[in-house]
Amino acid sequence: MICFGIDPGLGRMGYGVVSQRGDDMQALDYGVITTEPKEPISSRLASLFASLEEHIARHRPDAIAVERLYFGRNTTTAEMVFQARGVILLAASRFGLTPYEPKPSEVKLAVCGYGDAEKNQVQGMVKNILNLEHIPKPDDAADALAAAITGLSLSMYDARNLGASG
Amino acid sequence: MICFGIDPGLGRMGYGVVSQRGDDMQALDYGVITTEPKEPISSRLASLFASLEEHIARHRPDAIAVERLYFGRNTTTAEMVFQARGVILLAASRFGLTPYEPKPSEVKLAVCGYGDAEKNQVQGMVKNILNLEHIPKPDDAADALAAAITGLSLSMYDARNLGASG
Repeated sequence: MICFGIDPGLGRMGYGVVSQRGDDMQALDYGVITTEPKEPISSRLASLFASLEEHIARHRPDAIAVERLYFGRNTTTAEMVFQARGVILLAASRFGLTPYEPKPSEVKLAVCGYGDAEKNQVQGMVKNILNLEHIPKPDDAADALAAAITGLSLSMYDARNLGASG
Repeated sequence: MICFGIDPGLGRMGYGVVSQRGDDMQALDYGVITTEPKEPISSRLASLFASLEEHIARHRPDAIAVERLYFGRNTTTAEMVFQARGVILLAASRFGLTPYEPKPSEVKLAVCGYGDAEKNQVQGMVKNILNLEHIPKPDDAADALAAAITGLSLSMYDARNLGASG
């Protein structure tokens, strides 16, 4: 079972790919996809989409998890991130997947066991769960790995429930 | 010269295609693309993207104009519209076009001659400019035709300025 996790953004999008076998989880890949602020938004979205499709095609995940983000105000940042998110959800759909969209509190719960965990606690747990030597850098990649871990736990939950009802 | 105008939205996206020869503008096509609220957002975005690509491919426009929308608060509606907008800008980019993104006041200025025009004045002017018998329905389609007229006026402006500097 492989989950492709995403921390959405237009300038920097974090991604993290995690496989699970039994209780063992392993990071297959992580990093960031960046786009050039000088380019028109439409070109940046096209570039993000193309890179993301390449990454998804390479890993052929069984699930995709895109973390939800919240913005206090209707800022330009929110607009950009939601536009990028539209393209990310589209990419998932083109691989036949309906992405999980966990809230930050759901990611904290899945990774740390409680929804109020601090950012550095989440990062520490990502390192422990995936048996990494260091906390993954940059933060966007660590956040994406946390989203992937959450996606795996949500799909295990779904599989159990489908199994029970089927 | 053909411009493909868009009034963005996920549940209902208005489109309007306008051609210009000299001072004469003509509506080639207009309508709405709808998506099913019961479907997952990612599937709705994929369906919107596929329909939009079909429409753009059929008309092969020289320009695309996507009206900007403003939201007072960071509502769910804003999130949905911006996600749809991301997919719309991506579609434009895949046809090699950098879309115009006029603000509502710029659309009013281009269509009515002043930026404070009322909605029904814009619709009346769309009918007059395009020599239509009735105001186009639904409103989303009329708004998209207004965006297309604005795109034509902006690209004429660009052509003049490029001509002057070239």
